[in-house]
Order: sequence, then structure tokens, then C-alpha cells
Amino acid sequence: MTRDLAQAHPFDTATRLEPLAEGRWRGHTAPAYGNMVGPFGGTTAAVALSAVMQHPARQGEPISLTVNYAGPVADGAFEVRAEPVRTNRSTQHWLVQLHQGDAVVATATAVLATRRDTWSSVETGFPAAPPADSLPRAQPLGRVRWTSAYDMRFVIGAPPSTGPVEAGGGDSVSLLWVRDEPPRALDFPALAALCDVFFPRLFVRRPGWVPIGTVSFTVYFHADAATLAQIGTRHLLGHARAHQFRNGFFDQAAEMWGLGGELLAVTHQIVYFKE
Amino acid sequence: MTRDLAQAHPFDTATRLEPLAEGRWRGHTAPAYGNMVGPFGGTTAAVALSAVMQHPARQGEPISLTVNYAGPVADGAFEVRAEPVRTNRSTQHWLVQLHQGDAVVATATAVLATRRDTWSSVETGFPAAPPADSLPRAQPLGRVRWTSAYDMRFVIGAPPSTGPVEAGGGDSVSLLWVRDEPPRALDFPALAALCDVFFPRLFVRRPGWVPIGTVSFTVYFHADAATLAQIGTRHLLGHARAHQFRNGFFDQAAEMWGLGGELLAVTHQIVYFKE
Repeated sequence: MTRDLAQAHPFDTATRLEPLAEGRWRGHTAPAYGNMVGPFGGTTAAVALSAVMQHPARQGEPISLTVNYAGPVADGAFEVRAEPVRTNRSTQHWLVQLHQGDAVVATATAVLATRRDTWSSVETGFPAAPPADSLPRAQPLGRVRWTSAYDMRFVIGAPPSTGPVEAGGGDSVSLLWVRDEPPRALDFPALAALCDVFFPRLFVRRPGWVPIGTVSFTVYFHADAATLAQIGTRHLLGHARAHQFRNGFFDQAAEMWGLGGELLAVTHQIVYFKE
Repeated sequence: MTRDLAQAHPFDTATRLEPLAEGRWRGHTAPAYGNMVGPFGGTTAAVALSAVMQHPARQGEPISLTVNYAGPVADGAFEVRAEPVRTNRSTQHWLVQLHQGDAVVATATAVLATRRDTWSSVETGFPAAPPADSLPRAQPLGRVRWTSAYDMRFVIGAPPSTGPVEAGGGDSVSLLWVRDEPPRALDFPALAALCDVFFPRLFVRRPGWVPIGTVSFTVYFHADAATLAQIGTRHLLGHARAHQFRNGFFDQAAEMWGLGGELLAVTHQIVYFKE
């Protein structure tokens, strides 16, 4: 291992892309971000966005990212293809696909844009929460490696095995402080991954394990790169809840806040569950 | 005009697809669903989903749909291409593109699935609202033709020119009954379009017109075809609000309910605005 690799943050290792040709890269799943099976979906989303960010035709910063998890990602190498399908004066539209062998394992679309200063207003209130430093770090889940890659401090709605707060109430709301562990300066791929750290709402609402898998995941980015740089390595405050669990699928929605009350992103996903 | 066309519901006319080859169709924008410029984005989303639904390889019913509005759709003909990129045992992933000439005007992804009966729970409360019959129909906006294609009855948060309820309060929340006008039995493409009937939250929050355009739009479907059939032609109850307006973009999130308290879909979009 070279000195450079030895010093890399595990998230950078997990999202590293080796160029193969214009618009094509090879990546590799990383044990530090392993899930029950295959990699943490947040890193898959981060990889899709990283490909767009590294493409020489890229213009602007991310506004939206949707990732569809088409099939299981096996541990090992994958190929990413990113194509700018339309470039306008201030927005750019991307299609991304992740392949393993002949199989599409994920598709993604992203929209980038050049932001301008306009009238702005946060309509949702910044959630009341005690400081991160005053809360204990939730115990990572031993069999879910990626949970060790985040420092999570729950205010409400921890899954039963992850912290001091009991679940099983009438709703699936969680409020938690979260950052990369070890700390890492925030950027767009890391924010995309952080938007997927909320445990499946099913496990908050109804303790007990069943097989689950995110089907589709969307992030709307409200922050620009300068705002992310100001956040740096500090915790974000995340608030998540479900609207409905029905016939094998549930949705979850979340907001991701900076300590200063900046709403950095809103995110939604729909998740399959089996029982 | 043939008798068949004369009898068709305007929504069916607006979303009719003429097969060109497997996975390729030609459609045509319809004056009845015209927007300020080009067609109502809800019909563009419905067209993308209709292509998937009509494809001979289609398996299951829609779980998620994301449409990215890549550029202006000109009034006239367009081509739709839908490709199943991965079919699993119970889920199927689709890529869709709309073209006009050489330009991509929209991209979409959709996930379909076979639903099974499981434990189910609506977590969000059904909004309190007086019956649709007790409220006046909001006046359609003359210069926005598609608003005549829906019967909207606002409980709260009507844009100033559309009804009896005053806007301009501290938030962008709207609650309204809505159905196709003339009435039409609900199906997935119509529900996708109905998820886009919420006026831009900017105009509820801050009266006054500026150019806006949806950039990306997602629907998570919680209902199956049998549930939609039960709804039939009755009004849906829609609840929408924004989380943030910032530097040229705002998001909006909404829930779409059946009269009996069924949460049929949740939907999100991010919208560009200019000022």
C-alpha cells in the first residue's frame, strides 16, 4: 500500500474511481462501508455523484440526485458510466449507470446547476436538539460495518440496539447528530452518503429484523460548496420519518441540517421489506 | 376526427402514444394541458410512465417514478424511448427518455414491483378538511390552460388568483381537493400527473409571478391498481409544502390521499426560479 492510500480517509477509498475512458471509471467496494450484504447504499450514491463531479464536461454543482438500486452489488469491482445528456445555460442533466459484469446494479440521474443569489427562506424549523457533545455516541452495529464509519448521536428514535433511546413508539421519527468517523471535511458525495445513514424506518417503528433494501433514493441539495466547506468536519443534524408502510414498501423522508441552522439537503427514499 | 378520438378524455389524448418500434413511441402535446410555455409537466411525467406501462416486457405496478425536465418541451410531437434495464424476481427498473429532434427534453427512471400483503401502517395523519362538495371550485388560470383540466377546491393555501383563500402567510402549505375535469377513473399515469398539480410553492409563499420550472420530480406510489380503481373519479386530497427556497431553487413535498384515508402517493420536486 502506498503512503497515499494509507493516509486516505476510508470514505475516499470507498468512492475512489479509476478512469477507464471518458465517462467510464472502475470502482471497488470497501470493507469499511460494508452492509449486511454488499456495500452501504450511501456509498453507491456517492460513487454515482463522484463520477459526475469528476467528468471533464461537468458544469455547476449538484441540485438533485436520484439513485435506483437495481440489484445487489457484490463486494468487489464495479464500473461506472456517466453521460451528460443535456447541458443548458445554467443546468446540466446526467445519466449514470453502475455495472458489474453484464448486469446493471444501479442507475442514477443527477441535475447540476449554477446557483445565483436570490431571495431565500428556510420554511421548516431547525429541530431543537441538545448539543452533540452532550450526547453519547451510539454503539455501531457489529454486523453492519458502515455504521462504524459514522459518529451518530441520537436525540430521539434510535433503533433499540444502537443507543440509549428506546424505540417502538407510535411513530418512526429519528433526530440525530451525525458525521463521518473519523471526521472528514464535508463535500457533495459525502453529503449524499450522509443522507442515507437513517436506519430503515421500519426498524424504528417496529423493532425486529426483516430483510430490507432501498429501491430508489433522492437527494435535493440546498447548499453550495462554500456552505459545505464552512460545515467542515462538524456534525450534521438529521431528522427522518416515514409516511407509510404498505404491502412490502415504505417511504422515508429526511432533512439534513448544519449546526448553524442551514438546511443543507432534503432526501427521500422508498424501501422494500420482506416479512 | 374519428368518433373514438371525439369521445376520448383529454388526458388520454394528451398521453396517447403511437408505437414506432419496441420501446419507442411518438406522442404529441395537447392544448388542453398547455402550461405558460410548453406542456404541463404532469403530463410529461404521465407520458413517461405510460410508455413503461405499455411496454410488452412490463412486470408489476409502479413503485417510484423520477422525471428530470432536461429542457423546454416544444408544443408538438415528441418521441419516447423506454428500456427495462433490469428485471428481478419482484422488481423491474426502467430508463425512459423523451426526445424532440436531436434534443433530450426529459429523462426518467421508474421502478415497478409486484406487491404482497404485509403489515401496513399509515404514519402521517389524514388531513382534516371539509368535504369537497362544500367548497367552491377554484377559478382556473386563463393563461395556464392545464389548470382548467383539474377541479381544485382549496381548503388552505390557494395562490391569490385561484380561489377564495388568501395566500401570503408565513408558510407555503396548501391543502386541496383535486380531480381530473371532466372526471376520469384514476390510474397510475393520472395519479403521477395529479402529483404535479400543486402550484409552485413560491407563488403561495410570496405572491407575484416570476419564471419557474420543475427540474426534477419524484413520485412514490403507495397504492395498487385495485385501490386506484376504488377511488374511481372521486376527488383526492392533496397536501403540499416547501422546506426551503434558496438561491434560485426550492423544493416541495406533497401527499396525495383518497377520501377513505388511503395515502396513495408521496411526491417531491425541486424547482428552479428566476428573479
